[in-house]
Amino acid sequence: MQFFSDNAAPVHPALLAAMEAANGVDTAYDGDALSQGLDARFSALFERDVAVIWTSTGTSANALALALLCPPYGGVLTHEEAHIVADECGAVELQTGGARLMTCRAAGGKLSAQGLRERMAQVRRDVHQVQPHAVSLTNATEYGRVYTPDELAAIGAFCREHGLALHMDGARFANAIASRDCAPADVTWRAGVDALSFGFTKNGALNAEALVLFDPARADEARRRRKRAGHLLSKGRFIAAQLHAMLEGELWLANARAANAAATILAQAAGERLLHPVEANELFLRLSADEAARLRAQGFAFYDWGAGAARLVTSWHQGEAEVAPLAAALSAL
Amino acid sequence: MQFFSDNAAPVHPALLAAMEAANGVDTAYDGDALSQGLDARFSALFERDVAVIWTSTGTSANALALALLCPPYGGVLTHEEAHIVADECGAVELQTGGARLMTCRAAGGKLSAQGLRERMAQVRRDVHQVQPHAVSLTNATEYGRVYTPDELAAIGAFCREHGLALHMDGARFANAIASRDCAPADVTWRAGVDALSFGFTKNGALNAEALVLFDPARADEARRRRKRAGHLLSKGRFIAAQLHAMLEGELWLANARAANAAATILAQAAGERLLHPVEANELFLRLSADEAARLRAQGFAFYDWGAGAARLVTSWHQGEAEVAPLAAALSAL
Amino acid sequence: MQFFSDNAAPVHPALLAAMEAANGVDTAYDGDALSQGLDARFSALFERDVAVIWTSTGTSANALALALLCPPYGGVLTHEEAHIVADECGAVELQTGGARLMTCRAAGGKLSAQGLRERMAQVRRDVHQVQPHAVSLTNATEYGRVYTPDELAAIGAFCREHGLALHMDGARFANAIASRDCAPADVTWRAGVDALSFGFTKNGALNAEALVLFDPARADEARRRRKRAGHLLSKGRFIAAQLHAMLEGELWLANARAANAAATILAQAAGERLLHPVEANELFLRLSADEAARLRAQGFAFYDWGAGAARLVTSWHQGEAEVAPLAAALSAL
Amino acid sequence: MQFFSDNAAPVHPALLAAMEAANGVDTAYDGDALSQGLDARFSALFERDVAVIWTSTGTSANALALALLCPPYGGVLTHEEAHIVADECGAVELQTGGARLMTCRAAGGKLSAQGLRERMAQVRRDVHQVQPHAVSLTNATEYGRVYTPDELAAIGAFCREHGLALHMDGARFANAIASRDCAPADVTWRAGVDALSFGFTKNGALNAEALVLFDPARADEARRRRKRAGHLLSKGRFIAAQLHAMLEGELWLANARAANAAATILAQAAGERLLHPVEANELFLRLSADEAARLRAQGFAFYDWGAGAARLVTSWHQGEAEVAPLAAALSAL
Repeated sequence: MQFFSDNAAPVHPALLAAMEAANGVDTAYDGDALSQGLDARFSALFERDVAVIWTSTGTSANALALALLCPPYGGVLTHEEAHIVADECGAVELQTGGARLMTCRAAGGKLSAQGLRERMAQVRRDVHQVQPHAVSLTNATEYGRVYTPDELAAIGAFCREHGLALHMDGARFANAIASRDCAPADVTWRAGVDALSFGFTKNGALNAEALVLFDPARADEARRRRKRAGHLLSKGRFIAAQLHAMLEGELWLANARAANAAATILAQAAGERLLHPVEANELFLRLSADEAARLRAQGFAFYDWGAGAARLVTSWHQGEAEVAPLAAALSAL
Repeated sequence: MQFFSDNAAPVHPALLAAMEAANGVDTAYDGDALSQGLDARFSALFERDVAVIWTSTGTSANALALALLCPPYGGVLTHEEAHIVADECGAVELQTGGARLMTCRAAGGKLSAQGLRERMAQVRRDVHQVQPHAVSLTNATEYGRVYTPDELAAIGAFCREHGLALHMDGARFANAIASRDCAPADVTWRAGVDALSFGFTKNGALNAEALVLFDPARADEARRRRKRAGHLLSKGRFIAAQLHAMLEGELWLANARAANAAATILAQAAGERLLHPVEANELFLRLSADEAARLRAQGFAFYDWGAGAARLVTSWHQGEAEVAPLAAALSAL
Repeated sequence: MQFFSDNAAPVHPALLAAMEAANGVDTAYDGDALSQGLDARFSALFERDVAVIWTSTGTSANALALALLCPPYGGVLTHEEAHIVADECGAVELQTGGARLMTCRAAGGKLSAQGLRERMAQVRRDVHQVQPHAVSLTNATEYGRVYTPDELAAIGAFCREHGLALHMDGARFANAIASRDCAPADVTWRAGVDALSFGFTKNGALNAEALVLFDPARADEARRRRKRAGHLLSKGRFIAAQLHAMLEGELWLANARAANAAATILAQAAGERLLHPVEANELFLRLSADEAARLRAQGFAFYDWGAGAARLVTSWHQGEAEVAPLAAALSAL
Repeated sequence: MQFFSDNAAPVHPALLAAMEAANGVDTAYDGDALSQGLDARFSALFERDVAVIWTSTGTSANALALALLCPPYGGVLTHEEAHIVADECGAVELQTGGARLMTCRAAGGKLSAQGLRERMAQVRRDVHQVQPHAVSLTNATEYGRVYTPDELAAIGAFCREHGLALHMDGARFANAIASRDCAPADVTWRAGVDALSFGFTKNGALNAEALVLFDPARADEARRRRKRAGHLLSKGRFIAAQLHAMLEGELWLANARAANAAATILAQAAGERLLHPVEANELFLRLSADEAARLRAQGFAFYDWGAGAARLVTSWHQGEAEVAPLAAALSAL
């Protein structure tokens, strides 16, 4: 049983079906009816006009978003363990033309207005230092923490005060929404977010991510940058079909709830071992090498997280039947 | 009936089936068994050790290849109507860090050793001028022409003489091989090609291209650049599955032969209208505005190609039943 | 006697004197009084508020200007023999982050509104093609031609019509002004020029160029990009001192007039050999290999310009005494 | 009396004289005899064949060096307060095409083999993380500390072990050599340094820095990158003249000794206030706001260094007469 990462989980059958249904000949690139219908569909979800740029990976969504929001000579304030820092091999540097990731420390991967203010205060305003032009945060965070609307609104206010754009890496945005049970608008544009990398791949898609721009005037530049980045698939209708299938009947939310529920079961079993509150679908727990070996001997697969700790990630498809044995094994340690 | 482009054609059912079959949980990125098996499979096809980097688009394959072969301060000799010049929105400039496309003119989009030699002679060797470091050619060309092994060997010899790397944009490589009925090795590494963008999407895949490196030592850099470009899909096994399905039983060749055969039927009907010999699956023909309108009124869709000319492209799925009506209509003009 | 290029000419004694005078300890970078006084001084010359960014080379001035005016995914329409194309080793590509130089042909290196319109008409407006965002022209041109205010106004109108910014490479701007005897404003912002690389090095400075921004709001970005490019000298007062000395008593104009006058003398001697009208300080003339050898045997140094032609450039310091012998030798051929 | 920075100090009269002497017409760029003679001159100084690339700023020397040593998808291990991190506005990111500065903490700005080893151990070797390709250290450091040959040799060994190149930012290399009284070779190539930014501007030049490449085979790429960066001055002989004048009779060393001696006098006066040992020409000292105000009231100018501290920098031209009053004032506090 695999608890490595939700990014290796299977594709939801409804999405495979939608892809098969999209297989008639149609216009290439994003000229097809499915791609053309995305703006309206996401605008309904976000309760305002948005532009949606589909792409195949979260890395490309993040880097394209930041290329829109930060010039090459600028910087992006972000957490030192953010995915864009630790797991994307310099993608932001490539797409922005060399902007700098200016990192902050904070527990649980979670930025705060206060922490950003302190980091900002370290920057001289002269021409010799790279100036921040944007903030990028991850929700849910790399440690499975979820921001409250108020926390985000405070960060959004900080950004406006300093002329910074605000990007949200939402590789697990669905899990965050499922966790807080709030409107997507409440934790995005209403809080001051300019661009959201809305991830679907970890949540049951094959290769579908939506870069949501809350200012649709940025869409033309985004589309050109996507093409230039090699991310405009000729058969884009297959990505669009996945996104539609995800929004249909709130499948994205159902999947996220399932993954979160699985994590909650494990969290209860893990009890005092937990290193961070479990608010989405990731668990970080104290686990000795010996304990880890015992779990693995029972067939549970997961990553070590430094010495004496481990990370477990649950996915949309892992129901109680799959999770219960691990919960029992954790309790039995 | 659609003759716009092969890049909008449907996905072959065998590939959809292979993707469904790949849907069990497996390792993420390219750590899965399907991805890991590609080097061996393509090495067999090319009769030597090669490394294969899968990616989702031809644009990314081309730009990644040239980023390996040309430094940021260098240039790439290529045809002025090459896809990398006219249709990729500066993707090569992005991935190389600003290398320059140095264009040549030549009939039918087809470079020659002699033409390259003349272009090279215009370049001063001092530090003030951008120096070519690579040649990029397209096979089949943007005008549906196919290089002979001898023509390519002459270009390869020119490249070695001048210390240039050689890249082949093979968006329609399958059509070229089907046309010449030669070994893939004969028109690639045996002729001096260093990297091949081997396209499958136009030929019946969903989002699968293979960047084939004839020097496997370049693979590590290529993999890092792919990640940085946002092209390392987390569920890469779905791309690898398509590539395996394409090589299985030479489906790639069967598909290309079908498309070429459809083009041959149309070429016979077009007769003296043809602007270029038809060697693969594209036709360029003289067609007045009135004639074009008459064809469109009968339901045939295609692109104008400047004034008084048109481009028709056939695809793997267009059998005689679909092509015959257009052939008849062309004859009847 | 050296007629290779004005870029190797000596430094005018008034500038060396001004540099010596600037040698007291002062604030570093551009915080010194001399640097701070440049905006006002050039604003007076141009009859409007401008911002001036000093730099050490024309190449850096050009590339910084275009980085302000063209995004990385855009293109710059320019002459195929422009200095930025043929003599700057990809500097524009570096500073813009990979924008493309989109070249035009035109006699004498001189763009026209009509020629630009025809070039623009070749560009599809879709996301697949690089879109022009700026025009860059050279005045005086690489062939020593000088634009009239009307020609420039027509180009400026074309640019506004298409949303393009307009940059002037004025490596020999002084020679152009001396030639037309018009106000600097007439051939710059009044004609629609957004940024001017105003060259002084070829005209008697040591390492002083002024990037003149007709919209001072761009200055902050320009200053940051200059720093990032490594062009913010710590002892910038020595560049500023040169610029002040050049503007003092219109030395820049006197030097340019001297160089132009020398060229006029040679032009009269060259007569029907001239390949282009001589309007500034460069001459291009038909000259057989034998004739060239005879001139060189008399001690005259110059460049061949392809087979059967030569380029001669005169400089600010070459008075009649130096030029008359060459004029006589030309007449005697 | 000015103790802000040595980068605002005057130009040494011998260099101004050398520049005047260089003012005859000569070949442009670096084709002149002075530029051509630099390799031999620096090779003698470093006791081996080196190639020297002159440039106008330390920022450009650093960024060009790292562009040679680190690919765009790589990283540079360096101190978090290194000049390339804190004072060059992203110049390294520009010239490398987006490589990442991966920072370390260490007292006094001084890296160590052990510290680098610990930082390196944090990097996963997979394709998701940026991989270090080079180390950049500053000697003398930003806090005026000077490495011993043994410390550097240990760092060099660490680099070879991990396949990393080694760059030294020697903006105050002269002060470091004067401090240790060792051979330049001992703290550069003999210790494993690949490229040295050998600064002269802070030490009495106008705009002259030497990028010293201990592998001359890198020179061609360096020269092309310098041109592309806009740093190939047309009248380069004036930079070369400064470098020759500096090496003549070891003026560079005499100047550095003078600056160091001035700092030593101040260090004795500062006594227990010192925050770091004074090994070159910079002093960091505890100084209350009130004390700082008292010094300033006596005419001494310097930077605050956070709350309760100050930085003083001495220059080549500050003899005992200028320094003694400050020493007295410090003692009297």
